Amino acid sequence: MATLSDIGVSALINILTAFAFLLAFAVLRIQPVNDRVYLPKWYINGGRSSPRSGGNFVAKFVNLDFKTYLTFLNWMPQALKMSESELINHAGLDSAIFLRIYSLGCFLSYGFKIFVPITVVALFILIPVNVSSGTLFFLRKELVVSDIDKLSISNVPPVQFFVHIGLEYLFTIWICYMLYKDYDNVATMRLRFLASQRRRAEQFTVVVRNVPQISGHSVSDSLDQFFKTNHPDTYLCHQAVYNANKFAKLVRKRDRLQNWLDYNQLKFERHSEKRPTKKTGFLGLWGKRVDSIDFYKQQIKEFDKNMALERQKVLKDTKSILPVAFVSFKSRWGAAVCAQTQQSKNPTLWLTNWAPEPRDIYWQNLAIPFLSLTIRKLIISLSVFALVFFYMIPITFVQSLANLEGLERVAPFLRPVIELTLYYENIITIIAGLELLILFDQRIYTSFLPGLALKILLYILPTILMIMSKIEGHIALSTLERRASAKYYYFMLVNVFLGSILIPRTIGVSIPMKATFFITYIMVDGWAGIAGEILRLKPLVIFHLKNMFMVKSERDREQAMDPGSVDYPETLPSLQLYFLLGIVYAVVTPILLPFILNFFAFAYLVYRHQIINVYNQQYESGAAFWPHVHSRIIASLVISQLLLLGLLNTKEAANSTPLLAILPILTLSFNQYCKHRFEPAFRRYPLEEAMKKDIMDQTTEPDVNLTTFLADAYLHPIFRSFEEEELEEVRVDKVRVDKNQSYGDNAQSQTSDDHSSPSPPHHPTTSAPQDVYHHGFPPQYAYNFSSPTHYGYHYEAEPGNSRD
Amino acid sequence: MATLSDIGVSALINILTAFAFLLAFAVLRIQPVNDRVYLPKWYINGGRSSPRSGGNFVAKFVNLDFKTYLTFLNWMPQALKMSESELINHAGLDSAIFLRIYSLGCFLSYGFKIFVPITVVALFILIPVNVSSGTLFFLRKELVVSDIDKLSISNVPPVQFFVHIGLEYLFTIWICYMLYKDYDNVATMRLRFLASQRRRAEQFTVVVRNVPQISGHSVSDSLDQFFKTNHPDTYLCHQAVYNANKFAKLVRKRDRLQNWLDYNQLKFERHSEKRPTKKTGFLGLWGKRVDSIDFYKQQIKEFDKNMALERQKVLKDTKSILPVAFVSFKSRWGAAVCAQTQQSKNPTLWLTNWAPEPRDIYWQNLAIPFLSLTIRKLIISLSVFALVFFYMIPITFVQSLANLEGLERVAPFLRPVIELTLYYENIITIIAGLELLILFDQRIYTSFLPGLALKILLYILPTILMIMSKIEGHIALSTLERRASAKYYYFMLVNVFLGSILIPRTIGVSIPMKATFFITYIMVDGWAGIAGEILRLKPLVIFHLKNMFMVKSERDREQAMDPGSVDYPETLPSLQLYFLLGIVYAVVTPILLPFILNFFAFAYLVYRHQIINVYNQQYESGAAFWPHVHSRIIASLVISQLLLLGLLNTKEAANSTPLLAILPILTLSFNQYCKHRFEPAFRRYPLEEAMKKDIMDQTTEPDVNLTTFLADAYLHPIFRSFEEEELEEVRVDKVRVDKNQSYGDNAQSQTSDDHSSPSPPHHPTTSAPQDVYHHGFPPQYAYNFSSPTHYGYHYEAEPGNSRD
Repeated sequence: MATLSDIGVSALINILTAFAFLLAFAVLRIQPVNDRVYLPKWYINGGRSSPRSGGNFVAKFVNLDFKTYLTFLNWMPQALKMSESELINHAGLDSAIFLRIYSLGCFLSYGFKIFVPITVVALFILIPVNVSSGTLFFLRKELVVSDIDKLSISNVPPVQFFVHIGLEYLFTIWICYMLYKDYDNVATMRLRFLASQRRRAEQFTVVVRNVPQISGHSVSDSLDQFFKTNHPDTYLCHQAVYNANKFAKLVRKRDRLQNWLDYNQLKFERHSEKRPTKKTGFLGLWGKRVDSIDFYKQQIKEFDKNMALERQKVLKDTKSILPVAFVSFKSRWGAAVCAQTQQSKNPTLWLTNWAPEPRDIYWQNLAIPFLSLTIRKLIISLSVFALVFFYMIPITFVQSLANLEGLERVAPFLRPVIELTLYYENIITIIAGLELLILFDQRIYTSFLPGLALKILLYILPTILMIMSKIEGHIALSTLERRASAKYYYFMLVNVFLGSILIPRTIGVSIPMKATFFITYIMVDGWAGIAGEILRLKPLVIFHLKNMFMVKSERDREQAMDPGSVDYPETLPSLQLYFLLGIVYAVVTPILLPFILNFFAFAYLVYRHQIINVYNQQYESGAAFWPHVHSRIIASLVISQLLLLGLLNTKEAANSTPLLAILPILTLSFNQYCKHRFEPAFRRYPLEEAMKKDIMDQTTEPDVNLTTFLADAYLHPIFRSFEEEELEEVRVDKVRVDKNQSYGDNAQSQTSDDHSSPSPPHHPTTSAPQDVYHHGFPPQYAYNFSSPTHYGYHYEAEPGNSRD
Repeated sequence: MATLSDIGVSALINILTAFAFLLAFAVLRIQPVNDRVYLPKWYINGGRSSPRSGGNFVAKFVNLDFKTYLTFLNWMPQALKMSESELINHAGLDSAIFLRIYSLGCFLSYGFKIFVPITVVALFILIPVNVSSGTLFFLRKELVVSDIDKLSISNVPPVQFFVHIGLEYLFTIWICYMLYKDYDNVATMRLRFLASQRRRAEQFTVVVRNVPQISGHSVSDSLDQFFKTNHPDTYLCHQAVYNANKFAKLVRKRDRLQNWLDYNQLKFERHSEKRPTKKTGFLGLWGKRVDSIDFYKQQIKEFDKNMALERQKVLKDTKSILPVAFVSFKSRWGAAVCAQTQQSKNPTLWLTNWAPEPRDIYWQNLAIPFLSLTIRKLIISLSVFALVFFYMIPITFVQSLANLEGLERVAPFLRPVIELTLYYENIITIIAGLELLILFDQRIYTSFLPGLALKILLYILPTILMIMSKIEGHIALSTLERRASAKYYYFMLVNVFLGSILIPRTIGVSIPMKATFFITYIMVDGWAGIAGEILRLKPLVIFHLKNMFMVKSERDREQAMDPGSVDYPETLPSLQLYFLLGIVYAVVTPILLPFILNFFAFAYLVYRHQIINVYNQQYESGAAFWPHVHSRIIASLVISQLLLLGLLNTKEAANSTPLLAILPILTLSFNQYCKHRFEPAFRRYPLEEAMKKDIMDQTTEPDVNLTTFLADAYLHPIFRSFEEEELEEVRVDKVRVDKNQSYGDNAQSQTSDDHSSPSPPHHPTTSAPQDVYHHGFPPQYAYNFSSPTHYGYHYEAEPGNSRD
């Protein structure tokens, strides 16, 4: 273990690193040429179209206004200026709630709310107690392993432990109180957010999975029939889903070819004396040399032909219609009813759930046969289990080989090498974003080969976890990210936290001893790592590379921007790890708390800045991740209680443990209560709310045509991209239909006819509503492919021909 | 442990006991005087009104037809005659499915389906293997403890264990396959049963809990307003719930007094020379001597006065209206929607769920404030945990004192005493229904005092568990019984099964050794105990006592009958224990299997007879207990796999354990799949089914007045009992309302008006539907207490006065 001076040096290095990053950021961000790297959100929002700069050529790239260099830290107050409601409007509820985990507003909420009083109490009460009793809890002694070894555990007066137990109770109550208040707040915010949202397709839409295949009936027919029968008053229309995964792959490949063509054309324009050539073989290393521009043009042409064929196949082949559909209702109430009820006798058929918002859908997974989902889930959970627990084996092995001190004692001449490696590794780690790596560096010094293997494994871990989540078959990006995040959390919990603490046999010694290790971890990952986040080195480099080689038009430059987004699968688990560290060490080694507080403050600032100026969230889940955050903080509480229990047991203060044993039970009951009280707000949509919004809509905008509004909301984006060429066509189609016969009127007359039938139940089911629905909305949007030329996503646009 | 001859003697005694009971039953049942004890179900069904017998006086009480004595075992084929569909009509689905657990139809299903092939395979494969390898598995040696002690475990060739592992796989697959098929069958039967049920109140009704109290609004007003807003198309009416617990208690007390009065009057009629007297003091032991008839008449009069007051309080006091209501809908679809969706923003308010059928409601618990339920559940689960695990402490203590052999060795002269005690205890146990007691008899012989304490504890255990379930606050009797049953199962699992097996340290020795113990258990509880069930000694005695002292009229005799019902909280757990025993010992000690098979066959016969002729089920839950049965058999499988795993480990066949370790995971996944696939059929009601039934109703009986049908369905039965006197009044009321204005017409015109409004969502919410509902059904049935004399349950009937 590190000595006190080691910690000091490490702190210094990390603070300097963080400061260097901040300085670099401050200088780079005010250069006009980097404007699109550091302020992409404003470009996307339309709030900015070009860097504000003087007229001359140099000023276009380099900031010559030296005054601005003096105020280079002013991004910090700027980041704090925006109010929470503005932030929700600007970046969505997800981002606002994400920041809330770090802190809220004036630095006086959540992360802070929890840890500020705890830090004060712990430092002022526990440190004196620990010092006076001269135990293991006393920080200074603990840092020196050899001293700890000599400490006699039994000489601690057991009465002292009651202070720790009392504080554990106090902290638990405080944290639970804060958690309750914040769950309440967030749930209210979510409901308010949902209530204030304008009309959105997902409010009216339900995703139906496992539509049964009846021979002789198309999926669309079954859907129509089923919902007309069982939701006669509220069913509006549906959008079939096509298996366009192969088509999408072709589109991606074609885009890549187009990029190469653009690159070569740009090259030719700049050096028009020589046409660019390339070899046709593998990676352009061998084969016949051909003219690049002609080659790519030819390739693209061939691709276009294939794509047209594939598109025809998608549209014509009935097999490409998946047994999944997006079913829309006339009211939010109707959708809420359908989403929350069981439809069919066989509970594996006609599975309904709220549709994710269109941009949140992970289209590939809609093609997964529903029956395989159970098996997929089983396999993935076994794999995650194996991954989480077998990662420990190499780690334990490496750890068992030697530790830093052990090695030093054996070979003291290695010390400078080790230290150099440590700091070199730190810097590499931060730059590459391998925050986790540092956790293992004590082991890595001693054996570089296993270290390298670990490094690679750790680097690809988030990718592996994301792939695993995708295999599980979730259909929303937000769900995928939450699932990956959960897996990462389990990994960290077992391998980083419990692995470090439990592998050494005696908990009593290992928890306090590991404090120094975690202090280093917080400094490297939390301080320097976060500072690296704001610098955005990777997007910076990529943007400039793209800018240099591929950007021709303003639109290309637009596409070269990579705003990124909050990486929930990585940040949420590490955030939860900090909560865990703070909660566990609050009673055991309170000196860790200021480091954590520092992390929360700094990360809050940085992420606030990034969310306001950089990130562009792909979807809006309405803070759906909150229940996970909540329950994992509860888990941290229980872990801390159990560890304290173990600690006291090893200290032969076992008679005081029954006192502490009640605490986990109470904490878990509290969690149950919260789950019962607040979680429904994140999973279901109350009918009361749905009805309220429906009525409001009805009074404010009685004439809106919902069918038109919903018509192409749930179209695979790959079709949408080609729609632009035929958009005019589609619009004509819609208008034509609307002129012919308004759906709304028709439905009303239909329904009122039906209601003249004698007695309850009065749902209209007898007189054929078939015609009405067919006239009511353009059937081709829903499912009918009889005239594919009407389609928005008719790929090879042939204007004048496709219109009939 | 018992030796082989001990087992033989025990078997003989138990078989003789069982036979004696059967003989007694055969003789007693054909005596006309016992007709109402052994055939009450037919009296209740109306299929029988008096015993068929000859004319003379003696023949009224004793069967003189000696031919019938010769065919005294013919109840067995009779019990098998009834087909399953007839059985469902006769006794309900619950009973039919309950029998299905034992076996089905021609002895070839479920219990049998599972164990017949397993027994055959196990006996023919395992016994030879065990014999040839000469291991612990070999039955004969195992029975003699001293021989077992000498057995060397390591001399077993590990290859032999692969036979056991293979069979464990085979059995698991077979059981899972049977379970799957039967879950499927039962789910289908349930849905078919629900679909074939005629119109019932609970199909249209939802119970709403935690209706928020808004000051200035009555509960009824809030209810009406909320459901008219949020279920405008389907809401029909609601029935408020009154806190009549105190009133019900008074009624019960009055009934008791009435019984005493009847008894005394009867006594006086028979011995008219002397008026009966009693002392007024405690238990009639001291105090002033008074005339009994006058005393009870006086008491009843006072009670009637108090009850009238209390009734007024219930009706007038707004505080007696609970925040609970039964809300009825115009269609099953509407009720299904409401029951399955979240109503309010605050998920702890407006909690909806399917209403239990009226006779299934446990009215007392409706008065429990909803907020206290969480705490109640917590407290009860802690108590159950304590109960289950602290029961073990005295048992272990008693067990540690001595065991049978130990005692015998020390004091051989005690042997006859011990054996006498054993068989005396057995008989006592069977008669008193203390089946569980026998489990502990080995310990009880050695120390009678702790044994007595245990006996008392065990005797009151089911009562304790039922009280605990009641405290938990479930509102349906069926749920209460299922919960009590679950608790009893946990108790048996931990104390009877695991307690016996795990308390001795080495599993490897204890599982096979305990086989003899469980064989005895099966014989005592399963054979003799079941035979005791058919004899119905307790109801027999009580019926004749009542008949002698209290029965005056035919109606009194009707009430003196105690048909009883299947005691699910006790029989289901013990049934599950037999499954557990069979599954665990199938591989370890297959000789146990024939005993279990025998039990299933015999119990099936007996219960089939009882269900057809005796039991009168209080409620019909539609086999809602099945998911529990299923999951507990799965639990048995997993336990058996884990125990085999432990067994092989102790046998140093550890290298074969990974093979077995996958099995529990697969089994649990199978359970997950089944849960996902079938459980919804037991918890929810699919909209498809609801709609189908609605449409069918609409076409077959379009003119039915649902309001009349539902009006008093969910009235507290305590009010109902007085209704008979005023039934005429109520009927007039209903007819009057129906003549005035049909609800159906009114609602229709209302709805069709609304549908002319322009666009979706089209739920009528604007024009006041208040009036419609008020005219539509007699408001006093729903909530309005303005004219209490209209009430059916107006207690002190004053005909001519109450009609206005």
